Amino acid sequence: MAGNSFGKLFKLTTYGESHGKSIGGIIDGCPANLELDIDKIQLDLDRRKPGQSAIVTQRKESDVVEFYSGIFEGKTTGTPIGFQIPNADQKSKDYDHIKDKFRPSHADFTYTKKYGNRDYRGGGRSSARETACRVVAGGIAKQLLQPMQITAFTSAVGSLKLSKNYQDLDFNSIENNPVRCPDENLAKDMVKYIKSVRKQGDTIGGVVTCVIQNVPVGLGEPVFDKLHAELGKAMLSINAVKGFEYGSGFAGTAMPGSKHNDEISTDGTTKTNHSGGVQGGISNGMDIYFNVAFKPVATLIKDQDSIDKNHQKVTVQGKGRHDPCVVPRAIPIVEAMAALVMADYYLLDKISKV
Amino acid sequence: MAGNSFGKLFKLTTYGESHGKSIGGIIDGCPANLELDIDKIQLDLDRRKPGQSAIVTQRKESDVVEFYSGIFEGKTTGTPIGFQIPNADQKSKDYDHIKDKFRPSHADFTYTKKYGNRDYRGGGRSSARETACRVVAGGIAKQLLQPMQITAFTSAVGSLKLSKNYQDLDFNSIENNPVRCPDENLAKDMVKYIKSVRKQGDTIGGVVTCVIQNVPVGLGEPVFDKLHAELGKAMLSINAVKGFEYGSGFAGTAMPGSKHNDEISTDGTTKTNHSGGVQGGISNGMDIYFNVAFKPVATLIKDQDSIDKNHQKVTVQGKGRHDPCVVPRAIPIVEAMAALVMADYYLLDKISKV
Amino acid sequence: MAGNSFGKLFKLTTYGESHGKSIGGIIDGCPANLELDIDKIQLDLDRRKPGQSAIVTQRKESDVVEFYSGIFEGKTTGTPIGFQIPNADQKSKDYDHIKDKFRPSHADFTYTKKYGNRDYRGGGRSSARETACRVVAGGIAKQLLQPMQITAFTSAVGSLKLSKNYQDLDFNSIENNPVRCPDENLAKDMVKYIKSVRKQGDTIGGVVTCVIQNVPVGLGEPVFDKLHAELGKAMLSINAVKGFEYGSGFAGTAMPGSKHNDEISTDGTTKTNHSGGVQGGISNGMDIYFNVAFKPVATLIKDQDSIDKNHQKVTVQGKGRHDPCVVPRAIPIVEAMAALVMADYYLLDKISKV
Amino acid sequence: MAGNSFGKLFKLTTYGESHGKSIGGIIDGCPANLELDIDKIQLDLDRRKPGQSAIVTQRKESDVVEFYSGIFEGKTTGTPIGFQIPNADQKSKDYDHIKDKFRPSHADFTYTKKYGNRDYRGGGRSSARETACRVVAGGIAKQLLQPMQITAFTSAVGSLKLSKNYQDLDFNSIENNPVRCPDENLAKDMVKYIKSVRKQGDTIGGVVTCVIQNVPVGLGEPVFDKLHAELGKAMLSINAVKGFEYGSGFAGTAMPGSKHNDEISTDGTTKTNHSGGVQGGISNGMDIYFNVAFKPVATLIKDQDSIDKNHQKVTVQGKGRHDPCVVPRAIPIVEAMAALVMADYYLLDKISKV
Repeated sequence: MAGNSFGKLFKLTTYGESHGKSIGGIIDGCPANLELDIDKIQLDLDRRKPGQSAIVTQRKESDVVEFYSGIFEGKTTGTPIGFQIPNADQKSKDYDHIKDKFRPSHADFTYTKKYGNRDYRGGGRSSARETACRVVAGGIAKQLLQPMQITAFTSAVGSLKLSKNYQDLDFNSIENNPVRCPDENLAKDMVKYIKSVRKQGDTIGGVVTCVIQNVPVGLGEPVFDKLHAELGKAMLSINAVKGFEYGSGFAGTAMPGSKHNDEISTDGTTKTNHSGGVQGGISNGMDIYFNVAFKPVATLIKDQDSIDKNHQKVTVQGKGRHDPCVVPRAIPIVEAMAALVMADYYLLDKISKV
Repeated sequence: MAGNSFGKLFKLTTYGESHGKSIGGIIDGCPANLELDIDKIQLDLDRRKPGQSAIVTQRKESDVVEFYSGIFEGKTTGTPIGFQIPNADQKSKDYDHIKDKFRPSHADFTYTKKYGNRDYRGGGRSSARETACRVVAGGIAKQLLQPMQITAFTSAVGSLKLSKNYQDLDFNSIENNPVRCPDENLAKDMVKYIKSVRKQGDTIGGVVTCVIQNVPVGLGEPVFDKLHAELGKAMLSINAVKGFEYGSGFAGTAMPGSKHNDEISTDGTTKTNHSGGVQGGISNGMDIYFNVAFKPVATLIKDQDSIDKNHQKVTVQGKGRHDPCVVPRAIPIVEAMAALVMADYYLLDKISKV
Repeated sequence: MAGNSFGKLFKLTTYGESHGKSIGGIIDGCPANLELDIDKIQLDLDRRKPGQSAIVTQRKESDVVEFYSGIFEGKTTGTPIGFQIPNADQKSKDYDHIKDKFRPSHADFTYTKKYGNRDYRGGGRSSARETACRVVAGGIAKQLLQPMQITAFTSAVGSLKLSKNYQDLDFNSIENNPVRCPDENLAKDMVKYIKSVRKQGDTIGGVVTCVIQNVPVGLGEPVFDKLHAELGKAMLSINAVKGFEYGSGFAGTAMPGSKHNDEISTDGTTKTNHSGGVQGGISNGMDIYFNVAFKPVATLIKDQDSIDKNHQKVTVQGKGRHDPCVVPRAIPIVEAMAALVMADYYLLDKISKV
Repeated sequence: MAGNSFGKLFKLTTYGESHGKSIGGIIDGCPANLELDIDKIQLDLDRRKPGQSAIVTQRKESDVVEFYSGIFEGKTTGTPIGFQIPNADQKSKDYDHIKDKFRPSHADFTYTKKYGNRDYRGGGRSSARETACRVVAGGIAKQLLQPMQITAFTSAVGSLKLSKNYQDLDFNSIENNPVRCPDENLAKDMVKYIKSVRKQGDTIGGVVTCVIQNVPVGLGEPVFDKLHAELGKAMLSINAVKGFEYGSGFAGTAMPGSKHNDEISTDGTTKTNHSGGVQGGISNGMDIYFNVAFKPVATLIKDQDSIDKNHQKVTVQGKGRHDPCVVPRAIPIVEAMAALVMADYYLLDKISKV
């Protein structure tokens, strides 16, 4: 109810502030007897962790997950999977200078007003650090979903945008560059651009595209819990996300129905896929694809006007080690949230008919 | 679980197919002692109903809501509010010609595959007719939320787009034209365009913008249930919606942080509002605003290739009375879903601190 | 959240006051393609309805259920099943004399204090009339559960108690007498006793025993949602219920473990069944059996001291047509609630392992 | 959904097997700004822990809780409270002898059949060890509920039963004896009896009575989520519980309504309290009291017939260090579960009217 759980049948609940002793979570509802490859989960965590390349924050967190329950002799047991990621780099002193100040476009102001208190150490619960727990749970969901395949990549950084369709990209090249864009030349430009933005103490946003392949027909619940609605919520729940579109998206609003409709072939596939793999909230077996908009990171190394907790005017200046662009590290988070949604609907569909 | 409920504390559950005897719902969790103006609810239903103007479907449904419980002597009692809207226009014969065919970009194919059966009469449960129930519940939520104000309007039809900011518009003029666009000249062009599209047997999409004013600080639950994430899900759950963005949205991804950040004034307001009234998933007291993308209606009066239930090639031609553009009738639905989300978070916030 | 829904996957939500226009409900999550025998559902309603025999209230309600959705060509479609039971006998004038008075051991006082208002017509929402909706949903659940068999019967009225084990009873004789006790001689005594209690303007309680046969192994979720815990909640949610025990129950507390333990045979059955078919919250394939305690009906045809809404002393005297003993009409309600629980856990179990 | 969460607004989710590295949980929805006395929570854990007296298991677990989040500067912050209790005494070798055997009246058989696997180390998830997490969460709930007072005590061990009403007992004496019975003489008999039972390698059941005082009027949600129904579920979810009754309970079924009804005085209290403080599922301000039946512990130091996982006949003999009677250690668990229910309904009631 208080917003720290996700999913209906495959359910993740998380806890943890950025500068507490640890963050962690409980996955309830993972079916028993699933063989788990823990290394794959850690690999996704490594793709999210700080300090992994020159274009992300240089904060140090080893982000090694420890599992406490629900796994026995290499398989899930059907009981809840408890896990924890210790917070190694708890330099909460880094935050003394903003202890009583509300940073612009951060959650300092809203948390303080809502809860009547504030854990000022690095954003506390509002820090994107909590997304590491999502990556752990998503990593398990991915293994449940095999052979479904979930692939996210960077499709825009600022105004540098991929112009190719995802079908024309080589997904194997995504991890070949630190910005995770499967177009080598564009990736180079993006890296260069991010570095220049950082040099100015500034930040920039971007877009992540995600493609889900090998989806069975029939996943999704009609009316309020449409498959794409839950995917949208999942993405919008990631820190810094400002928009979500699937299939033809916003551009599709300007197409006539006669162009937009996806005619159906005798094998049940459609000739085009403006529907983005979902019709009436239920997967039709075609690829699901969607875009996720990330705003520029709010922490700048520049002076900004703001107020303190007594509503007095102050100047805020970001210190510390922050991301100039959140998109490269967001890739595994987008995949994880997509996996959580798909796992939930995969299980729900098992009971849709007698 | 099966997707026909929305909300946590202020919860709507609906039933009903487009060509059954009635549609209806139950609202559970509306606080007691709320004085209700039933006429206002009916007014919203009238804004949604078919046949209201020359640019929408000419199907006839009086759409009069009947309440059965939960209201006594003009006030809510705290018990569930049961209601029904009879289906007046049940010409299910209109659908005999598509009984065994899967219409392109409709839910016929996915429902059939998921459930192993199909109520072929007018889309059955997948018809947007169910949104009438959302309008009823949203109408009650709006009254709970006063003086919060929720206003939606048409901001694009095809490539005809409003260029003004919402602050420069006169919301009182929205209902002055059938397309519900608060720019008289653009509205005329939109109406003309929709008529020409219909004449071609074609359809077109559009964008609805929604603004929520007088929002208290503190509504929203962090992490997975961020206020904008739930708004996004609510919008994406509306038939034909392909995208959602709030505040700076997709355009904001190309802004540097130094431009995008909303500096805070001593009265707690922000100088700009790229955040769209939500920071860290919690309302900051500024206006909430967002865009919702609607695809072109899938029912065309044109021949299309498709298959029947035996996967044999067939030709589908739309008959009957359909909307050339869904956007004008979607306005009260967008408002209703926004109201349901805000009512839920309004109640949730009451228990956020001791 | 506000208490008018039951179940996780097979979910019933109800509305309706005893003297409103109708009561009704929505069943969400019933799997598609279940063939339904509507007559069987009506039969259970008839077993619950007032006026069916000389020992129950002579109020008249035909209690005919109307279905509005979710059923097409004799089968469930997977969409929500909306239904309604009109309230035929709305003599709300019968209640004018208690309009401002709080009847002892009724919910008048607590509803008024909780909600700040009161629908005084016959108990409003707190009336057991709402249980008719449970019987409708339970009737569908029973059909989903076949060949599982759920049988309830009267095992005590006041201090008249069945002394036989359920295994020694002929369940076919339950409906042979108005009190629904499968021991003909005891049934006669019970009927005579209930009549004498009524003649005195008084009421009496009793016990219902329920047996669930042909249960598959594996239904139930550990820890908080143990099968018997949910059965207990389901029973305790029925009006007038004061206690629940399963298997050896309260008597089992005085047995030594060496007598109480159920040794396991090589066919997986147990030699005794003190466990009542549930071990660790999960069904073990043996019969599930439990007892439900019903208090005497609170409405008496006798003077009682009480207060009015201004906390002034008043005398309350029951009028109208009430049950002297609730147990005979409670039989189908107990069965229905048991069926709802079993249906939910039956579906949940389908996703317990890969 | 999979049964490891409890509560709607004040929600506990737990993980952990008896012989894993740790057990733990997450409390989501505790209001912010609650000052916490951690020592009091630890005190309740100490009342539950093994080895605390001569009549309980001599297993050694220090059971010290560590909090990881949600508490800052002595107060709750409104974010989830993550906590862990390390498992000190992981002698899983103790269980090698029953690795492939199903112990009578344990959950070995049902878990294995349901999940297709088994964590055989000490019962795994089905061990009552998980209840330590409930005590932690209940300890926080108790502090939220002040000045509400929740008191549980032993009212029966085998056939040794307290004959006094709870009003005639001195609750301060409960902790004066290891069996937690507030009648010194009876307590001595109970201790002696438990010791003799243990000497025989046998076990015995008992009854716990719980009283909740200073309850405000209006807690509880009608129909399915009645206050006593949720209390019943909470109690029945505790390991070894076989029955629940509140107020007049099973005995009340034999009372005439004219004796059973609680007449109301002008101060809003009732002259008697057969209702057990709850009418129509909502608290009426009188004391809530209920009884919980615990079966004899299933682990005996005696030979028992059973089968192994291949359904071959085997003999099972309990080894190790087990409780001869679970009741003394169950006291804080009953209190904790009662506190969780009351906290949930206390919060829910805050939104029952405008």
